[in-house]
Amino acid sequence: MTLIERLRDVLGAPNVLTGEETARYATDWTGVYAAEPLAVLRPGSTAEVAAAVRLAAETGTPVVPVGGNTGLCGGTYAPGALMISLERMSAIREIRDSARIAVVEAGVVLDTLHTAAAAHGLAFPLTFGARGSAMIGGCLSTNAGGSNVLRHGSTRGLCLGLEVVLPSGEVLDLMTALHKDNSGYDLKDLFIGAEGTLGIITAATLKLVPAPVAHATAMIAMPSLDAALGLLNRLQSETGGAVEAFEYLPGDTLDTIVTHFDALRAPFAESHAVNILLEIGATAPRDATPGADGTLPVVSRLEEMLGELMEEGDVLDAVIAMNAAQRKAFWAIREGVAEVALSRKPFVNADVSVPVDAVQAFLDQIAERLRRLDPEVTALWVSHLGDGNVHYTARPSRDDPALLDRVLEAVEDVALSLGGSFSAEHGIGKSKLASMRRRKNPAALAVMRQLKAALDPQGLMNPGKVIPD
Amino acid sequence: MTLIERLRDVLGAPNVLTGEETARYATDWTGVYAAEPLAVLRPGSTAEVAAAVRLAAETGTPVVPVGGNTGLCGGTYAPGALMISLERMSAIREIRDSARIAVVEAGVVLDTLHTAAAAHGLAFPLTFGARGSAMIGGCLSTNAGGSNVLRHGSTRGLCLGLEVVLPSGEVLDLMTALHKDNSGYDLKDLFIGAEGTLGIITAATLKLVPAPVAHATAMIAMPSLDAALGLLNRLQSETGGAVEAFEYLPGDTLDTIVTHFDALRAPFAESHAVNILLEIGATAPRDATPGADGTLPVVSRLEEMLGELMEEGDVLDAVIAMNAAQRKAFWAIREGVAEVALSRKPFVNADVSVPVDAVQAFLDQIAERLRRLDPEVTALWVSHLGDGNVHYTARPSRDDPALLDRVLEAVEDVALSLGGSFSAEHGIGKSKLASMRRRKNPAALAVMRQLKAALDPQGLMNPGKVIPD
Repeated sequence: MTLIERLRDVLGAPNVLTGEETARYATDWTGVYAAEPLAVLRPGSTAEVAAAVRLAAETGTPVVPVGGNTGLCGGTYAPGALMISLERMSAIREIRDSARIAVVEAGVVLDTLHTAAAAHGLAFPLTFGARGSAMIGGCLSTNAGGSNVLRHGSTRGLCLGLEVVLPSGEVLDLMTALHKDNSGYDLKDLFIGAEGTLGIITAATLKLVPAPVAHATAMIAMPSLDAALGLLNRLQSETGGAVEAFEYLPGDTLDTIVTHFDALRAPFAESHAVNILLEIGATAPRDATPGADGTLPVVSRLEEMLGELMEEGDVLDAVIAMNAAQRKAFWAIREGVAEVALSRKPFVNADVSVPVDAVQAFLDQIAERLRRLDPEVTALWVSHLGDGNVHYTARPSRDDPALLDRVLEAVEDVALSLGGSFSAEHGIGKSKLASMRRRKNPAALAVMRQLKAALDPQGLMNPGKVIPD
Repeated sequence: MTLIERLRDVLGAPNVLTGEETARYATDWTGVYAAEPLAVLRPGSTAEVAAAVRLAAETGTPVVPVGGNTGLCGGTYAPGALMISLERMSAIREIRDSARIAVVEAGVVLDTLHTAAAAHGLAFPLTFGARGSAMIGGCLSTNAGGSNVLRHGSTRGLCLGLEVVLPSGEVLDLMTALHKDNSGYDLKDLFIGAEGTLGIITAATLKLVPAPVAHATAMIAMPSLDAALGLLNRLQSETGGAVEAFEYLPGDTLDTIVTHFDALRAPFAESHAVNILLEIGATAPRDATPGADGTLPVVSRLEEMLGELMEEGDVLDAVIAMNAAQRKAFWAIREGVAEVALSRKPFVNADVSVPVDAVQAFLDQIAERLRRLDPEVTALWVSHLGDGNVHYTARPSRDDPALLDRVLEAVEDVALSLGGSFSAEHGIGKSKLASMRRRKNPAALAVMRQLKAALDPQGLMNPGKVIPD
């Protein structure tokens, strides 16, 4: 029997797709990395994933896992490989209210988990634009971030237990609901963020948190980024760490967004250089009850504090969302950045991080560097300021591959000179292999290669990703 | 030249101790695992650690790192090995207020870091009884826990960056201050909790948090553990996650402790089965100002809530600390448990964890199991209920090694049958190798062995620890 026939035996013929049927799995959201796989497999259980991986190992066939196809780095590019789609493994096995955990399979769509947790008065706080398609397995494999990382951490910080099919086809069951377990090496975190190069994540035990009963959401104009960081630290103390988002939008970017979308309006009468989209989440039941003036307590407290800061000159201007529609409008500005940035071609799109107190230095230095490379360059950016992550999109004046490459090199140079990373939350996949080769600490790369060789000696798991040759 | 002579050349003769001079390093806090090392080295820099490890690798000599000697599992037992004491690497290299990080060397004593952070209005929240001797390198190597894990996580959750000397003597510099970095495998977390078996941690970048300006500390008698878990979840929502400690003391244990120490008094007139030591930390400046009645706001809010719960019968009794002395007295009861438990010989001392909603089931089942083994057995325990960690000390009626072993087996059986771990926060070291051999998931053990062989092919780093033969 051929490999495909054997796979059809194990998984059932309808779950082994070939030829044109594979197209919708083999083209990701970016559209850049399409390639025809040998087949797309749709296992319905961990045992079926394990059986498929065993057959792949026996026959020396590469294996590439795929979830919602929403990655940005070509992590599921799979020419000639067996793509294993986790989409049929979409059960939320259990939600335990008092332990505040969810036990889910890898194919659960992020949004589906949000809805299921909400029905228990709880929340799974990981969230980002692609939540309607991204699957938990992909979130874990890429250690996805998003706009709530400040309060709740990246996907890694929300995962207690993991189930992984190893390159041999053996199942590694680390499905604990424990908050403390010091019985040996931390294996879970090795597979999280490994983008399927060490094994295939099939299920996870995830932390849930109390769902906020009220939000205070505001646009705040600050005199400087330093002042903004001071405000963040003050808010963290004032709220006991309830700041859910602290997003920095520069004036130019904000103006560009509100000009681009007819439905959006500028939050302030005049333009300010440093604009912060702040969101605080309140979880106490009393926070759901408006005060005598009809305002929610968490909003009143923020109003009071911002009023004081404006009098002292520490805040230039501020608008607090007084209802759900205003809150949505503020977020629409923030979430409009990606569309506008990627529509202005040519562009160089970087996802860097620096220490939270080095964002201004990064912006000053990169502006100077790019001016020297190309006096007519423009840039849009937005930053999860609370975690030092800057999504920086430069638009050089001409579509010259050599210039685009020099721009990317400059962005990476500056980020790394400040102790930063060239990949904050999107991962490496295929698209950042060159950066990995030239930027990553050689000692760290050597250790990664040792680990990869130890766990996947045949090199069949998502080959050509994460670790450069 | 002999190895010792070469080491004296590199480190200076006063930093290479042999014979009797090694005794104070070679005997740990438990006193159980004393053994004479080949020498104790006291390097003063990462480069010196690296040089010493290179010489060890060249000569095939085992290497065992040692910090404050406060481990409970014999993790620094080092017969015939080179012990590398990190005590001279005790610099706090930097504290950055606005980024809220501390850059420290491995030999910094935990308490010293507490004091240094406090001078900046910040806190390093990891804390436990041995804080006056335990060093950061040991905390990281064992992923130390303690009583604040509920709010801030174990040591792992407080570490952003790490510097490690690999078994080859090469330095792996992962000293980032980044909150997001998805550039490849998560190497840091592999070394944290590995107890020196994969390399020697020489420095770290740690997270700091706002120092609480006020605490609300209370002893609360609850009708059941289920009700206690409900209270915890309610408090987490009410406070937005500001619960710093939620420690469960059973009535018998509490009575035993207050009887044992003359200075301690029972918190309640009558004995209750389920007693909770609760501590909430408030960080808002306004929380430092007492209200009109002289009571701190965080205390008033807790009083109000507990009052309501008592009226509804959900809380049986409660005493709130009204000053620092009362707070200290409550904590003295909690911290007296270890001394009393370990003074009543013979004893079997277990550090298990179960899912937070399974603590009562664990206690019911283990009581039943032990009664069958030994009708006269007694037990003391205390639990970090918020994270499911139970420190369970059984005292069998006779000092019979076979019985002691059966008691330990029973505790482990019950914990594991509930999805728990036989080592919650103390690690494995040497003392729990037998449990590791018989209890640990074989697939996980196999992966650990692969990782160990890949990174330490000569098997020289802290041999005979963590991974059983």
